Amino acid sequence: MRQSQLFTKTTKELPKDEASLNAQLLIRAGFVDKIMAGVYEFLPLGWRVLNKIENIIREEMDAVGGQEMFMSALSPKENWEKTGRLETMNVLMKALGANKESREINDAEYILNSTHEEVITPIAKKFALSYRDLPFSIYQIQTKFRNEARPKSGLLRGREFRMKDLYSFHVSQEDMKRYYEEVKQAYLKIFKRLGIGADTYITLASGGDFTTDFSHEFQTECQTGEDEIHVCDKCKIALNKEVLERQSICPECENKDLRLAKASEVGNIFPLNTKFSKAFDYYFTDKEGNKQIVYMASYGIGPSRLMGVIVEKFADDKGMIWPENIAPFKVHLLSLNQNEEADKLYEVLKDLGVEVLYDDREVSAGEKMADSDLLGCPFRVLISAKTKSAGKLELKLRDSNEVQMLSEKELIEKLS
Amino acid sequence: MRQSQLFTKTTKELPKDEASLNAQLLIRAGFVDKIMAGVYEFLPLGWRVLNKIENIIREEMDAVGGQEMFMSALSPKENWEKTGRLETMNVLMKALGANKESREINDAEYILNSTHEEVITPIAKKFALSYRDLPFSIYQIQTKFRNEARPKSGLLRGREFRMKDLYSFHVSQEDMKRYYEEVKQAYLKIFKRLGIGADTYITLASGGDFTTDFSHEFQTECQTGEDEIHVCDKCKIALNKEVLERQSICPECENKDLRLAKASEVGNIFPLNTKFSKAFDYYFTDKEGNKQIVYMASYGIGPSRLMGVIVEKFADDKGMIWPENIAPFKVHLLSLNQNEEADKLYEVLKDLGVEVLYDDREVSAGEKMADSDLLGCPFRVLISAKTKSAGKLELKLRDSNEVQMLSEKELIEKLS
Repeated sequence: MRQSQLFTKTTKELPKDEASLNAQLLIRAGFVDKIMAGVYEFLPLGWRVLNKIENIIREEMDAVGGQEMFMSALSPKENWEKTGRLETMNVLMKALGANKESREINDAEYILNSTHEEVITPIAKKFALSYRDLPFSIYQIQTKFRNEARPKSGLLRGREFRMKDLYSFHVSQEDMKRYYEEVKQAYLKIFKRLGIGADTYITLASGGDFTTDFSHEFQTECQTGEDEIHVCDKCKIALNKEVLERQSICPECENKDLRLAKASEVGNIFPLNTKFSKAFDYYFTDKEGNKQIVYMASYGIGPSRLMGVIVEKFADDKGMIWPENIAPFKVHLLSLNQNEEADKLYEVLKDLGVEVLYDDREVSAGEKMADSDLLGCPFRVLISAKTKSAGKLELKLRDSNEVQMLSEKELIEKLS
Repeated sequence: MRQSQLFTKTTKELPKDEASLNAQLLIRAGFVDKIMAGVYEFLPLGWRVLNKIENIIREEMDAVGGQEMFMSALSPKENWEKTGRLETMNVLMKALGANKESREINDAEYILNSTHEEVITPIAKKFALSYRDLPFSIYQIQTKFRNEARPKSGLLRGREFRMKDLYSFHVSQEDMKRYYEEVKQAYLKIFKRLGIGADTYITLASGGDFTTDFSHEFQTECQTGEDEIHVCDKCKIALNKEVLERQSICPECENKDLRLAKASEVGNIFPLNTKFSKAFDYYFTDKEGNKQIVYMASYGIGPSRLMGVIVEKFADDKGMIWPENIAPFKVHLLSLNQNEEADKLYEVLKDLGVEVLYDDREVSAGEKMADSDLLGCPFRVLISAKTKSAGKLELKLRDSNEVQMLSEKELIEKLS
């Protein structure tokens, strides 16, 4: 894309009322815009990153047999009364306004969903009633809502946020645990593809509402992280604070030498067991014709939160640094008054299928280079009078200070 | 996909409290589920169709230079006070609940957006302030909300629905009109690709709140349509009821012989002129350094509504009939106790990139054929003892009664 066509612009000004590093950088770079506390608009560059994150997650959910669907944002209060979560949920919305022309007000109260167990369980119950129908798993990627009292962490904790939620249904706890392990591995693949695999730990957490067993968080080590985890570097797993109070050794290798680290949560998975199937009377008929309770588990990853964590983890004092798989563009091509040469290279790279943001704007070299660092595409290619007279192109990686002078052929080999 | 793996099932039962044909068929076929009046869940087959519709729209919006972004569902009331639409909007949501653990209640009132002029105009104003930045256009595809008093038309008019909305920004009314015509043509391309091009008419409508000029609806002729249009068959344009009261001849050719037809609205576009730029003080600096008001237009298409209209338009008494471009699968492969043969053909077709739903279930031939008609994939391929002994395969188009016996080679030529 030609940067001159992009309707957003960067700014050096720090956004007002924005304490979090991720939102500061994303707003300055024109990736997101804040409309009110905890609610962000994804501008074209931010939307590209979010889409890439969501597509990686989608591919790995498809790979474990998840069937994609799309659930509603609104749901009736009755479903939440059945599970006893109406009082604990923190988003309850009431329609107050009315179209005067319609002369009729619908003043019903609805839940604006922050999670979808109360939606998916009755749906599953409509279709899958025999042991032959089980197991199966369903997922969706969409917007969820949470009535945060004081949101201040940018994309890490919003009133409105993106979520991938997978739900699985099983004939037994044993089968649930088997699939739970499969999804755990799929999550590790996702974090690897997102560029945070080496620093993301499966972290034992208490089971929450759902179970006396452990649930599992995925925590990414990050200096600005809001959580503290205790890492076993031998097994690459961790315990969260609550679990550490119960046991202070690695459950895998009994290592006592756990390393304290700051981290941000990037996913969590819960063995729901029978909590929701009981609430909705969801039973199946087994081979012998007997009614049996369905076992469930749920698996969450927040793509918008992930985007914020990745910004915070990799940013330096000049701006953002995107892992290649989710960068808005792989290459940032800067023309320093050499648009004729740069136009040609832009077309060559596009034809090779390389994603290029081409800075063809009439602004200073300094501004272009500062913007390039702020935006954080992994490869910067620069064409200047100097590179032209040398018959070369300048390549710099965003996460390195080293500059390479390459021929067009060498450059293309590196980039495609 | 193997139908035995699909977690949804068809049903012969008519859903309760569902007057509309589109919802009756979509629910019976397991494409959608209704959670409450006006709110539907898109199950895997329905989600596939919706995605295909949205991707066709996306491609044509990209082709007219639209920059995709993703706006929030929530917005602050103040933005709607500025445009004077707070009272006329029919969705105003108030957060009533609170997470007791947080011991703090956020009881602010928000708008749950039914349209996004109040969101996009202040964003555009942040970035595009010079004549050099104009024109540009931005679009998104996401979920919107409308507090319908008594929703009863299935996907045609929900409390929650999918919407593509494009907004364009210009230095003058003339430039706005130029782009408006360009998008009009893009809309015609979209409807053609969706399989309803021949029966969809650009329809003059009154300008609504925004303008004394006409706005334009796109109306698809359909026996169950809720609107009445007056078609000039020479020019392939129409007038809606309101406009007919003002003028009763075709504005293009002055034809007086307009044909009354039932139709469903599938899109509408509005010259907003300066209504929203004035409300948000959105001015640009022209070449001479003078402040000038920005001209805007907006362009809507509802993908979920379109899905409902397409079901109603093409359905017969046996079920749905999907146009090929948006069918959940191109081919429905039915095995009548010949799974060994059918497995092979399924793999061959998949390898060729043909989208196949393979009915490998252990149910009767009658049930498979009835389900196939209900689901409405364009091509049905049947393998039975009879076809096998003839060394042939049976091909039937959903919208024809003719059955063809073909060799595998002939079949593959037809389908790939």
